[in-house]
Amino acid sequence: MSVIDEVLAANATYARQFSLAHLPGPPARRLAIIACMDARMTLEQILGLQTGDAHIIRNAGGIVTEDALRSLLISHHLLGTQEVMIINHTDCGMVKFRDEELRARLQQASGTATVAPACFHAFSDLSENVRQQVQKIRSHPWIPAHLSVRGFIYDVHTGQLHEVAATPN
Amino acid sequence: MSVIDEVLAANATYARQFSLAHLPGPPARRLAIIACMDARMTLEQILGLQTGDAHIIRNAGGIVTEDALRSLLISHHLLGTQEVMIINHTDCGMVKFRDEELRARLQQASGTATVAPACFHAFSDLSENVRQQVQKIRSHPWIPAHLSVRGFIYDVHTGQLHEVAATPN
Repeated sequence: MSVIDEVLAANATYARQFSLAHLPGPPARRLAIIACMDARMTLEQILGLQTGDAHIIRNAGGIVTEDALRSLLISHHLLGTQEVMIINHTDCGMVKFRDEELRARLQQASGTATVAPACFHAFSDLSENVRQQVQKIRSHPWIPAHLSVRGFIYDVHTGQLHEVAATPN
Repeated sequence: MSVIDEVLAANATYARQFSLAHLPGPPARRLAIIACMDARMTLEQILGLQTGDAHIIRNAGGIVTEDALRSLLISHHLLGTQEVMIINHTDCGMVKFRDEELRARLQQASGTATVAPACFHAFSDLSENVRQQVQKIRSHPWIPAHLSVRGFIYDVHTGQLHEVAATPN
């Protein structure tokens, strides 16, 4: 039995007890989160959120890529979110490789050079990475100045969030 | 009190009861999920997952963008995931606008044309959109043929997942 078949069986149980049909699309607490895809973070639990409270955008590293900006612009301008959290975390896989090494390995294994993805966004300094992501949002001309944007590191060994950057102050 | 300050207070409570310091980085069930950012989906609950089980990649629409592919390549090649679920959902905001309308609105409001994001990925046919995302993964030269890739629609009014595409068959 594949893992996907297992989670589909779990979904059948979930659907039998489902009670959230009334939830509207726009997030109730007007919060958008950009976080790493890491399996050790169940964001709703870490943040005390209920289903329906927040948009959750996730990718490898919790990077403000063009795609994360796309999602955030839709979240704010079409669905009304007013505060943004960026969440990176300790022990992240993104500090354990280098872009050029991974690219060379995949090219060698596949015998194929590709155009996309152009970059893997590996990084070395976690706090500095968070600050850069906050600034990428802050400097986008379609992000209004009043939008609160704050950056955090989640400690996978304690469960605690630590703030490293905030704008506007 | 801002919503972010509220969730930080909730995080302090979470950290006091934290018991997951032992979790390794690679996902225990070797599953990667690409899903919409929609607030109505708490994916761990919908799929019966524990913290630590799966990588969760999310963006507006659950689109296999270059960034989602970047994340998936890292997930599979560096962290060992072997199955991929794509999850779109009913009542998605992405069918309620058109790219050019949103772009025009943001340009007018800000007085600024921007280069990125180049595209917002609005769509009209939900099932067809899921099938296209499965094919975008399947056709990438760095995704091995044995990787299971299956596409689903989550019904926000029943809690049920419905499968619309799978490869390899």
